Amino acid sequence: METKASICILAFYFFLTCIKSSPLQFSKETYLKTRQSFLDAEEKLKIGGNLTLTAKEEKANAALMRLKYAEINASRNGAPFPPSMHFFKGKPIIEKSSVFKILQKMPKGAALHLHDISLTDIWWIVKNVTYRPNCYMCQDVNKSSIKFHFFANPPQNPGCPWMLVSHQRQVSGDRSKFDQMLYNSMSLVVDDPVKTYPTIDAVWAQFLHCFDVANGMVNYLPVFKDYFYEALNEFRLDNVQYIELRGLLPQVYDLNGRTYDKTTVMQIYQDVFNQFKRDHKDFSGGKYIYSSIRIKSPTDILGDVKLSLSLKTNFPEYFAGYDLVGQEDPGKSLLYYIDPLLYPQQQNPPIKLPYFFHAGETDWEGTPTDDNLIDAVLLNTTRIGHGYALTKHPKVLQAVKQKQIAIEVNPISNQVLKLVDDLRNHPAASLIAEGYPVVISADDPSVWGARGLSYDFYMAFMGMAGEDADLKFLKQLALNSLQYSAMTPQEKSNAMNLWKYKWDTFIEDINEAYWYHNHMGRNEL
Amino acid sequence: METKASICILAFYFFLTCIKSSPLQFSKETYLKTRQSFLDAEEKLKIGGNLTLTAKEEKANAALMRLKYAEINASRNGAPFPPSMHFFKGKPIIEKSSVFKILQKMPKGAALHLHDISLTDIWWIVKNVTYRPNCYMCQDVNKSSIKFHFFANPPQNPGCPWMLVSHQRQVSGDRSKFDQMLYNSMSLVVDDPVKTYPTIDAVWAQFLHCFDVANGMVNYLPVFKDYFYEALNEFRLDNVQYIELRGLLPQVYDLNGRTYDKTTVMQIYQDVFNQFKRDHKDFSGGKYIYSSIRIKSPTDILGDVKLSLSLKTNFPEYFAGYDLVGQEDPGKSLLYYIDPLLYPQQQNPPIKLPYFFHAGETDWEGTPTDDNLIDAVLLNTTRIGHGYALTKHPKVLQAVKQKQIAIEVNPISNQVLKLVDDLRNHPAASLIAEGYPVVISADDPSVWGARGLSYDFYMAFMGMAGEDADLKFLKQLALNSLQYSAMTPQEKSNAMNLWKYKWDTFIEDINEAYWYHNHMGRNEL
Repeated sequence: METKASICILAFYFFLTCIKSSPLQFSKETYLKTRQSFLDAEEKLKIGGNLTLTAKEEKANAALMRLKYAEINASRNGAPFPPSMHFFKGKPIIEKSSVFKILQKMPKGAALHLHDISLTDIWWIVKNVTYRPNCYMCQDVNKSSIKFHFFANPPQNPGCPWMLVSHQRQVSGDRSKFDQMLYNSMSLVVDDPVKTYPTIDAVWAQFLHCFDVANGMVNYLPVFKDYFYEALNEFRLDNVQYIELRGLLPQVYDLNGRTYDKTTVMQIYQDVFNQFKRDHKDFSGGKYIYSSIRIKSPTDILGDVKLSLSLKTNFPEYFAGYDLVGQEDPGKSLLYYIDPLLYPQQQNPPIKLPYFFHAGETDWEGTPTDDNLIDAVLLNTTRIGHGYALTKHPKVLQAVKQKQIAIEVNPISNQVLKLVDDLRNHPAASLIAEGYPVVISADDPSVWGARGLSYDFYMAFMGMAGEDADLKFLKQLALNSLQYSAMTPQEKSNAMNLWKYKWDTFIEDINEAYWYHNHMGRNEL
Repeated sequence: METKASICILAFYFFLTCIKSSPLQFSKETYLKTRQSFLDAEEKLKIGGNLTLTAKEEKANAALMRLKYAEINASRNGAPFPPSMHFFKGKPIIEKSSVFKILQKMPKGAALHLHDISLTDIWWIVKNVTYRPNCYMCQDVNKSSIKFHFFANPPQNPGCPWMLVSHQRQVSGDRSKFDQMLYNSMSLVVDDPVKTYPTIDAVWAQFLHCFDVANGMVNYLPVFKDYFYEALNEFRLDNVQYIELRGLLPQVYDLNGRTYDKTTVMQIYQDVFNQFKRDHKDFSGGKYIYSSIRIKSPTDILGDVKLSLSLKTNFPEYFAGYDLVGQEDPGKSLLYYIDPLLYPQQQNPPIKLPYFFHAGETDWEGTPTDDNLIDAVLLNTTRIGHGYALTKHPKVLQAVKQKQIAIEVNPISNQVLKLVDDLRNHPAASLIAEGYPVVISADDPSVWGARGLSYDFYMAFMGMAGEDADLKFLKQLALNSLQYSAMTPQEKSNAMNLWKYKWDTFIEDINEAYWYHNHMGRNEL
C-alpha cells in the first residue's frame, strides 16, 4: 500500500512538473483526461478513498447518494442545511432526513470519545430516576439552581431544604411542566442558544453546571449502575457496538451515606460491562479512560497517574488509560503537568500508561492551550481528543499521520461549545479530505439532546466530507473506529467479525428497502 | 533554501522515527529540548518563519508584540475579540486598537485582490459626487430602491422620475439624514447583519445591488476618473503602494449620453494610473485584470478572452490578465467555460493570457463550484482569488505550493459574505501555519465600511496567524504581495526598493514612538 502511495505521489509530482514546464497546446480531450486524473487522485486520498465496494454495496450506495444529493441540492436552493445551523435548531430537521435514518441503521462500530455523565438521554433520568423513592431535590431561594440527592432521611439543609421530588411534582400542579423543568436543569438545550450562551466561557459554565445537577442523582449506587447500563443500551440501539468513555471515577454513594472509592467504582463499571455483554451478544463491550480535571495540582495528578497504573494492572480488560479533561483554554496545560505525566516512562524499566489526551480543543492559536497538541504527541498519546486546532500545526499533523494517532472528532460538541458555527468550516473537513486517521464521536450527546453517534455521523457525512463523499467514507469511519480503539488484537478481530456481519445485514436492508421492494419509490428503511 | 528544507524534513522524519521506536527513559530536560525543537520547527514553517529581523526590527517587534499580547489576553479574559465578531460590530473596537494603528502605518506593499467599484469610501461618493451639478436620483414608489445618473437633461422616466439630488436634499429638511440614506443605499453596513442577511444568497443579492446603485454615478466619465484617482489615494494613505484590481471595464458615459467602449475605458485607467504616479512618487502604480461575470454564455466569454489578448498587447504596462467574477456558487463553473478558456493556449503558437481566477469561494465541498480550484490550477492560473475551499483539496494544495500560486485571502469579505463567522476558523490559518504563498487583500472594502488593507491585516495578524505571530509574519506578507504581483522583474525591483525605504522608516517610527521618547509609556504612533 505504501509503495503504491509513493508511486502515486511520484507520478503526481512528475505530472505537476510537466504541466508547469509545458507551453504545449492542450486539446480539450487531454485537458479533461488530466482533470479526471486530478479528481481521482483527490478521491483516493479521502477517508475511504482506498476502499472498493462490492456490487451489493454499490447498489446501496446509489440509494444513499440519491438521498444525499437530494437533501444537499434542496439546501443549496434555499432549504435549511443542518450542519450550518445551531444543532438545537437543526435537530428536528435532521430527524426528518432519510439520510439520517440510514445512518441510524448503519453499524457504526465504536464510539471512542464519550464522557461518563452525559451518555444517557436526560429524559431517562427525568422519567425513570426522579420517579424513584427517596429522590430529593432542593432549590435555592431564587430558584436559579436545583440539586438532587437520594437519602433515607435527608439532613437539615438551611437555605435549600431537601424535598421529595415526588411531593414537589404533586404540588406543582402540572407534572409535564415540572418534568420539563427538571430536564432543563440538566440540559444545555434552549430556544435561543446564541443569545443564552454569548461566549465560550458562558456555555462552558452552564455545561459544567448541568453535570453538577445530574451527578447528585447519577452517583447514587443503584442509579449509577442503571445509568451506565442504559447508556450502553442507547448506544447499542443506535447501532454502536463498543464504547470507550472518559470518566472521573466519581464518588458513588448509597442510601446509608456510604461512599465508594475509585477502585470500587471501576469494579462497578466492569460488572455492568460484563452484565451488559451477557445480556446482549451483539455488543463488543468497551473500556474506561480515567480522567482528571485539568485544575488539580501536579501532586494530585501524580496520584492519579499512579492510580491509573494500578487500575491498568487490576482491570486489564476494561481499563484503557489516562486523560485530563475540562475546558481546555482556562485549564492547566499538559506542560504544567509534565513531571507527573513523564512519571511512568521514567520508571526503571519504563512502564507504559496509555494516554488519550484531549488537546487543541481551542480557537486560540499560538497559546499554551494550543501547544497541548505538541505535548500530546511527544508524550506518545494513543489518540487525540478533539484535536480541533490540529490543522494549524503542520508538524503535529506529520506526526499524527506517521504514528497513526487517531483524532477523535466530535462535530456537534465543537459547535454547541462554540468553537465553530457552520460545521462545513470544521477543520476536520481537511483531515477527512487528506485521509488522516479520524474517528467520529459524540462527546456529551445527552447534554445537547443528541443520542448515540448518528447525529454526529450526519454532520460528518453531510457537512464535513463533501457532497460527493459516499458509503466508502462511512464504511471507513466505522473501520477506523474499531482499528483505533484500545482493544487487543484478539478483541478487535472479534469485534470486526461482529461488525462485518452487521454491515452485510445493513447493506441487505438498504437494498431491500430501496430497490427490491420499492424500486426507489420509498424513502425510508 | 530547498536543500535546507529537504534536510530539515529528513531530520524531522528521523526524529519522529526515533521517538516512535524508543521506549527509552525520557528525562525532563531531554523532553523540554525535544519540545523546543518541535516548536522551532513549526515556527520555521509559518509565513515569515525564515526571516531574520535586524536589531532595530527586533526592538520594534518587542513593542508590537507587547501590544498584541495585551489585546489578545484582554480578549481571552472576556473583552470582545474583533476577529471572532461580525466586522460591523468589531470595526469600532479595531479602530481603538494600538496594534491596528501600527498596521495602518506599516508599508503593506501591494493589494492584489480588489474590485473596481468598491475601492473608495462611500462617504466620498456621498459628500463629493452627489454634491456635483447634474446629479439626478430616482426612487420607485415604495422607496425601496434608489438609482443615480448624471444628465444634462434627464429623460422622462415614468414610475421613477429623475430628480436633482441637490433639490431632494434641500426638500428633505435634514441634510445629514438624507446623506446617510444615500450612503446606506450603496453599503452593506446595517445594525444587525445576522438578521438582515440570514443567508449567503441574501447578502450577495444586497451586495450586488449596492454596486448597481453606485454604478449610476461612478460610470459618469468625470466621476469615473476621480473615483479611481481617489481609490489610489485611499490605498496610498493606508500605506499600500501598488494595487491590482479586477474590473468589468464598464460602460462609461458623459453628460451628452455618449458612451465609451472597453478599450477606451482601459485607456482611462491607464491615464489615471499615470497621472497618479506623476503626482505621487511614493506610489508604484498597479495593473488591471479584466473580468467577466460568470453568467455569460461561452460565446461571450470567448469574446472577452479575445478582447483580453488585444488589451494585453495594447496596454502592456497596465493590463495584467483575465478572470471571472460574481457569486461563485450559483455562477457557471470554469469547466463550463473550458472551450473559451483553452482558446489562448490552443493557438499556434500558443498565446499566454495570464489568468487570475476566483476559485473555491464556497463552503459547498464536492460541488462543481468547489472543483473550480482544480480547473484554476490546471488552467495555469497565476494566482487564486480567495481559494477559501483550498484546504479541502490536498492535491490542489500540492500544486499551489509547487507552482507557487499565490492565494489572495480576503478575511473580512469572507466573513461579511457569510463563508465563516469567527475568523480564527478561516482556513487560511492553516495556509499561514504551513507557509503557503498567501497574500492578504480587501476585496470590496468600501461596501462594508473598511478602507485600504489595514482592517484585513488586523484580522490576519490577530485572528488567523496565532498569538505568537510577529513582525516577521507581517513583513513576509508585504514581501509576498510584491513578489506575487503581476509586475515585471524590473517593476518589482523598483517597487521593492521603494518598499524597503518605507519599511525602514516605519521601523524607525515605531522605535521612536515606543522606545526612545516614551520608554514604552505611550501606546500610539
